[in-house]
Amino acid sequence: MRVVCLAGGVGGAKLADGLQRALAPGELTVIANTGDDLERHSLMICPDQDTVMYTLAGVAGPEGWGLAGETWHVMDGLTGLGEGTWFRLGDKDIATHLYRTERLRRGKRPTEVAVELSRALGVPSRVLPMTDEPVRTRVRSDDGWLDFQDYFVRLRQAPDVLEVRFEGAEQAKLTPEVAEAFRTAEAIVVAPSNPIVSIGPILAVPGMLEAIAEARRRGVRAVGVSGIVGGKALRGPADRMMASLGEEATALGVARRYAASQLLDAFLIDRLDESLAEDVRSLGLEVVVTDTVMTDASARVRLARDVLAATKAQA
Amino acid sequence: MRVVCLAGGVGGAKLADGLQRALAPGELTVIANTGDDLERHSLMICPDQDTVMYTLAGVAGPEGWGLAGETWHVMDGLTGLGEGTWFRLGDKDIATHLYRTERLRRGKRPTEVAVELSRALGVPSRVLPMTDEPVRTRVRSDDGWLDFQDYFVRLRQAPDVLEVRFEGAEQAKLTPEVAEAFRTAEAIVVAPSNPIVSIGPILAVPGMLEAIAEARRRGVRAVGVSGIVGGKALRGPADRMMASLGEEATALGVARRYAASQLLDAFLIDRLDESLAEDVRSLGLEVVVTDTVMTDASARVRLARDVLAATKAQA
Repeated sequence: MRVVCLAGGVGGAKLADGLQRALAPGELTVIANTGDDLERHSLMICPDQDTVMYTLAGVAGPEGWGLAGETWHVMDGLTGLGEGTWFRLGDKDIATHLYRTERLRRGKRPTEVAVELSRALGVPSRVLPMTDEPVRTRVRSDDGWLDFQDYFVRLRQAPDVLEVRFEGAEQAKLTPEVAEAFRTAEAIVVAPSNPIVSIGPILAVPGMLEAIAEARRRGVRAVGVSGIVGGKALRGPADRMMASLGEEATALGVARRYAASQLLDAFLIDRLDESLAEDVRSLGLEVVVTDTVMTDASARVRLARDVLAATKAQA
Repeated sequence: MRVVCLAGGVGGAKLADGLQRALAPGELTVIANTGDDLERHSLMICPDQDTVMYTLAGVAGPEGWGLAGETWHVMDGLTGLGEGTWFRLGDKDIATHLYRTERLRRGKRPTEVAVELSRALGVPSRVLPMTDEPVRTRVRSDDGWLDFQDYFVRLRQAPDVLEVRFEGAEQAKLTPEVAEAFRTAEAIVVAPSNPIVSIGPILAVPGMLEAIAEARRRGVRAVGVSGIVGGKALRGPADRMMASLGEEATALGVARRYAASQLLDAFLIDRLDESLAEDVRSLGLEVVVTDTVMTDASARVRLARDVLAATKAQA
């Protein structure tokens, strides 16, 4: 069963891992957010793509991002040279960025490099950037517009987010690889990533929503999972971000976002949020109430199976 | 006493270190060969400049190049990704290249970045690239033209060198910093580096020989040291290279090269080569016979003092 999964960083990577384990090799394609990509120390860094890739390769670090068993000698060297090293890059991780940066400079497309890297790391799934054009998420705080990683890493998500934009999104194009993935997809999954700054940029790529709609017209079902459980984001600032943007910081708020784009057939919410099921249903979505918190590998697979079941079920 | 020293890699760095120890802080300016610079893994690498800089910072590695106490995790990562890693870069060294590459990409001149890096490493001398324009040394072997590091590192200097060229040299310009160094110089030193591929590219920068000649017209003396002792290069392939180019692979051969450019007032040769002194003198050069092999720090200072004495003496 060919599945396309839209994903951001750590939370999306966990569900992608569950899907990869539940599916046959090669059946999973992950479309990764590139809105939080950045250039630092001359390197092109793709945090969400790499988090997914490392997770699917089984080499992710203990916090879910970066690589396991990392060392930090390059960062120490940069610190010694007086460079700001708030965006911490491990030595092995830097090898990935050097590989990518070199190939991009030689004119390869980001998608081609992503496919090469996944292959080199032995990932059985495809991890595709959402687009080959540069899209950069920026957030407006009381102090003005900030680059995403400035807000996310350097300022540790402390400022309230008053507005979000995806610079370059209007000029972005669907890649042949992403278009083909949707053309052959048998199910579409929206991971429990931040709906605003992880899934939002993916959906902002012109043609993305239409490609999903076209697949759904063929009978392919699209299923999402809430990354907000009991009014709290499992990870990251999605809850506070939704609140400061005037949205409801609950699974219902997430469902409303996706319903507004007519993105999904069904939505999975946690048992903790069972009381919201009726309201989600009233948005025109099927609702599955289940355990959505992926505390270990078996929980990832369990959730992936619930998701896959929902992509098949007709309510 | 303000001294300008032309230098390549390890041998030049050793004499520069001796000069730095023998002079007052700030009196030494080293003009480093950039002909063997290269781009690898998206990084701009300046081997000779860095060897001089690390040596003058007191942090050079045990072989004279790179950094002491290096680790190799980034290289291991690149190897894991299937990259060719014949040009070995340590983790701390990579920090230098990331710093440089990032600044160059933002439009800084190589000279500005070199000055910044030296300052960050606490080097009391100035280390200046010979030019800000790209100059690339290439060598012709039986198999055709090779990039310098391809010949030097990957092929371990095995091929015979039949011809040498410095691509880009015609378009290169003297930097304001190099011009100023010669304007204020009180002595000029040509280090015991490879006369063909270390000193050669420096002298090939348009305006370099004229700047030296202009200083000499002001009474500044220029003194060179042979890097070939007893018919053998102390390091690297200078002897074989001179032979395959049809030159004499001795201190006399080196002296002939420099005499042909009317570069020097005096030439230092090793006691082992005392028998060549008359022939060197007949080229119009003063000759100083001394111990030129820099086996330790005190030998570096001793040779530097001999060099400085020769820049003052009138024969």
